[in-house]
Amino acid sequence: MVTPIDPTSSAFLLVENRSMPMHVGGLQLFEKPEGAGPDYVRTMYEEMRDVSDVSPLFLKHPHRSVKTGGQLVWQPDELFDAEHHVRHSALPQPGRYRELFELCSRLHSTRLAWERPLWESHVIEGLSDDRIAMYTKVHHSLVDGVSAMRLLQSVLSTDPDERDMSAFWAAEARPRRKKDKKEGATGGAQSLPEVPLAVLKNTMGTAMSIAADAAGMPGAFVRTLARGARNEASSVSFHAPRTIFNQTITGSRRFAADEWELERLQAIGKATGTTVNDVVLAMTAGAIRQYLLELGALPDDPLVAMVPVGLNAKQSHVASAEGGNAVGSVMVPLATDLEDPLDRLDRIHVAMTDGKEALSTMTPAQILAMTAIGQLPAIVPPLLNMHGIVRPAYNLIISNVPGPRTTHYWNGAKLVGTYPLSIPINGMALNITCTSYDGRIGFGLTGCRRTVPRLQRLLTFLDEEVIALEKGAGVL
Amino acid sequence: MVTPIDPTSSAFLLVENRSMPMHVGGLQLFEKPEGAGPDYVRTMYEEMRDVSDVSPLFLKHPHRSVKTGGQLVWQPDELFDAEHHVRHSALPQPGRYRELFELCSRLHSTRLAWERPLWESHVIEGLSDDRIAMYTKVHHSLVDGVSAMRLLQSVLSTDPDERDMSAFWAAEARPRRKKDKKEGATGGAQSLPEVPLAVLKNTMGTAMSIAADAAGMPGAFVRTLARGARNEASSVSFHAPRTIFNQTITGSRRFAADEWELERLQAIGKATGTTVNDVVLAMTAGAIRQYLLELGALPDDPLVAMVPVGLNAKQSHVASAEGGNAVGSVMVPLATDLEDPLDRLDRIHVAMTDGKEALSTMTPAQILAMTAIGQLPAIVPPLLNMHGIVRPAYNLIISNVPGPRTTHYWNGAKLVGTYPLSIPINGMALNITCTSYDGRIGFGLTGCRRTVPRLQRLLTFLDEEVIALEKGAGVL
Repeated sequence: MVTPIDPTSSAFLLVENRSMPMHVGGLQLFEKPEGAGPDYVRTMYEEMRDVSDVSPLFLKHPHRSVKTGGQLVWQPDELFDAEHHVRHSALPQPGRYRELFELCSRLHSTRLAWERPLWESHVIEGLSDDRIAMYTKVHHSLVDGVSAMRLLQSVLSTDPDERDMSAFWAAEARPRRKKDKKEGATGGAQSLPEVPLAVLKNTMGTAMSIAADAAGMPGAFVRTLARGARNEASSVSFHAPRTIFNQTITGSRRFAADEWELERLQAIGKATGTTVNDVVLAMTAGAIRQYLLELGALPDDPLVAMVPVGLNAKQSHVASAEGGNAVGSVMVPLATDLEDPLDRLDRIHVAMTDGKEALSTMTPAQILAMTAIGQLPAIVPPLLNMHGIVRPAYNLIISNVPGPRTTHYWNGAKLVGTYPLSIPINGMALNITCTSYDGRIGFGLTGCRRTVPRLQRLLTFLDEEVIALEKGAGVL
Repeated sequence: MVTPIDPTSSAFLLVENRSMPMHVGGLQLFEKPEGAGPDYVRTMYEEMRDVSDVSPLFLKHPHRSVKTGGQLVWQPDELFDAEHHVRHSALPQPGRYRELFELCSRLHSTRLAWERPLWESHVIEGLSDDRIAMYTKVHHSLVDGVSAMRLLQSVLSTDPDERDMSAFWAAEARPRRKKDKKEGATGGAQSLPEVPLAVLKNTMGTAMSIAADAAGMPGAFVRTLARGARNEASSVSFHAPRTIFNQTITGSRRFAADEWELERLQAIGKATGTTVNDVVLAMTAGAIRQYLLELGALPDDPLVAMVPVGLNAKQSHVASAEGGNAVGSVMVPLATDLEDPLDRLDRIHVAMTDGKEALSTMTPAQILAMTAIGQLPAIVPPLLNMHGIVRPAYNLIISNVPGPRTTHYWNGAKLVGTYPLSIPINGMALNITCTSYDGRIGFGLTGCRRTVPRLQRLLTFLDEEVIALEKGAGVL
């Protein structure tokens, strides 16, 4: 059965090109259960591959022809080929995380073909610590980052003895959230702002429609833009220096990831009167500063990050389909002009507080418009340059996808880590996305391989920054 | 320095799309030298990656902009990234050839990005027999299949003790043919017809220019086409039944390969008064017949193969850049309507003899025109359907790239097998290319993964057909 594709999903399909594949990814690490034999990984792969009934979401592919009047439609894949989508891969010796990230980088660089359903899942063996890795990519027209992480987690269980669990693409797969509803992905005081990647989907869709109208852009809208541009002190303004991140990108990716104990970040927050969110942003700010210093590419003006934040229904006056949350974003100056880590943390804390307050006074339409404008330069740079108003709206996106807080299992295999891979776009060559899971916070860095050289150095700098913050806060 | 791209190379760049990547590939198998340590493969990979001086051919990438007047030009890659081009990969357990072919299929399916030089080489570990595999892909705009195989072999040596040998992309790499000039790739009585893939490059270029002119196709040309179409008995005619191979293709590939002792084929040839070439074609004919029977898709009319043949300078009245050989092609009915393997071999032998004789009476222009016409349906099917003259000109291409006849080594690692991966195109979903090396003949089968299901079954049928021919010829 042919079904129409909604405008936002169509936009993700149509803006995609070889330099800018539009899929989100996830890397999960599992520990084998006790007594796993030498064929454990192969059996795991085969069980996943041989799912008898695939969910319609993972069976449809985009199609456009004279018969559809040139419109994009979803069409079921009549020749579904499980081996094409579920793959078994391996790492070369010595099987370090370096080799794993290199493989994920390659897999994340290739586009999904429209002729087939828009997803792939790789069961990866060969890690020297005997863990199993699973890399999954799903096109952004099917799911956003939050839904993708939820999907990956929906088939997990808190019960290590549960078996006969399905892969996430199986029609019979159902969220197993009964037992740990309170521990689910719906956040709380400790978690970072919620529903981060969903904002991309919403705002990019909006940005597209704005872009389409921009040739006849009404005067009031331009006035709003200009007001925003003048309002430099505000954390909702659109000022950021030019950096190496804000260039045209190429199609190849570099991915790196690591994780830190949430306890350490909480201790820093407690000692300094800031939140875990603020500490995450300060870690990133310090790491980016060090990275750019090393490359001799640190601008005088502080970099600005776009940080998606969730708003509760009361604040936003609007309920989203996700159930009561709407999404806004705060522009946070990362204080990369300051040398002291605690000064940076302080500046970020103030900006986040101001930003959230500012958001709470705006109408939903204003929030959406602002966020959409923030996305515009990435999608229609020539259009905006034409107006001559806007420098890069921000330098990078830092977002967070909250994950389960307790240990989860898949058919007895313990999930020990989960890291998101996101989408660099033209003008925004680096994306940093975090996921919390089981007392730890994982950072996934996805960059254009050419524009963001030696991206893996950021992991070292992130680690150094946690220690510097601990020392500064007196908790080490 | 920017240099222009010749029209044929441009054509290969411009006809390429996601369903039809235009790179040739090679799979080589090496045995480790005595006493190789556990780090042998990694060291081999690192030595290849760390080539200090890359040859200009492997440093340039295509570029087109307003500055070049919209013309495609070659431009050196100022940010050459060796790790992007030279890669280390591994096979999952149990490391059978099945896993190797699966990996090669995936690697052969992805397009090379124009932003970088158009090649990749993968050093692959994890084969259960402890061999090392190397998969290389190079865009057809840089080399044709013959040149690619020569290139791969140019850095090998007959001396197992030679060391400090370079990778083929190194500027200092030079053909090491002094010692074995007579044993080189220039064929002889036992080899299959020469210069097979080069024909694709020449004729596709010609076909492109013909296609461009086709809207105003002159009457004489159409008459020639029509005469050819009526001349059904001739082995230079353009009649072939419709088969599953002659469809629009998708972007994913399936590759499989195997090899047989040349001695066995020679024995069949000797006992039946046919050539090794004829036996290779008969093997393929029998295997294709069995494959299509199993799928319930064998047409009543015999399939027709396009077999490129080399002509000596005297025959062709024209010297090619390769040094005295020009290329023609013979259309060979594969006698898939006959049940007996020896009857098929006999029919093929007659067709090849007739075809070569017919070629010898044609002028070079006629040969080129005929071969170009044979290629047309693959490239401009709608155009030709419009004229209503031509069914598929042939059903598949079977060609051969002669390789070295003696054992060769790379830094002490013994080359034990070499197999070509070729280019399926729209209307021609299966390509069979053979390479002879060191007393064996290797078959490389490259097909569209969707259009040619269970391609690996052809290997079984090829093997059964050798045995059937041996039994029929009384040499088993």
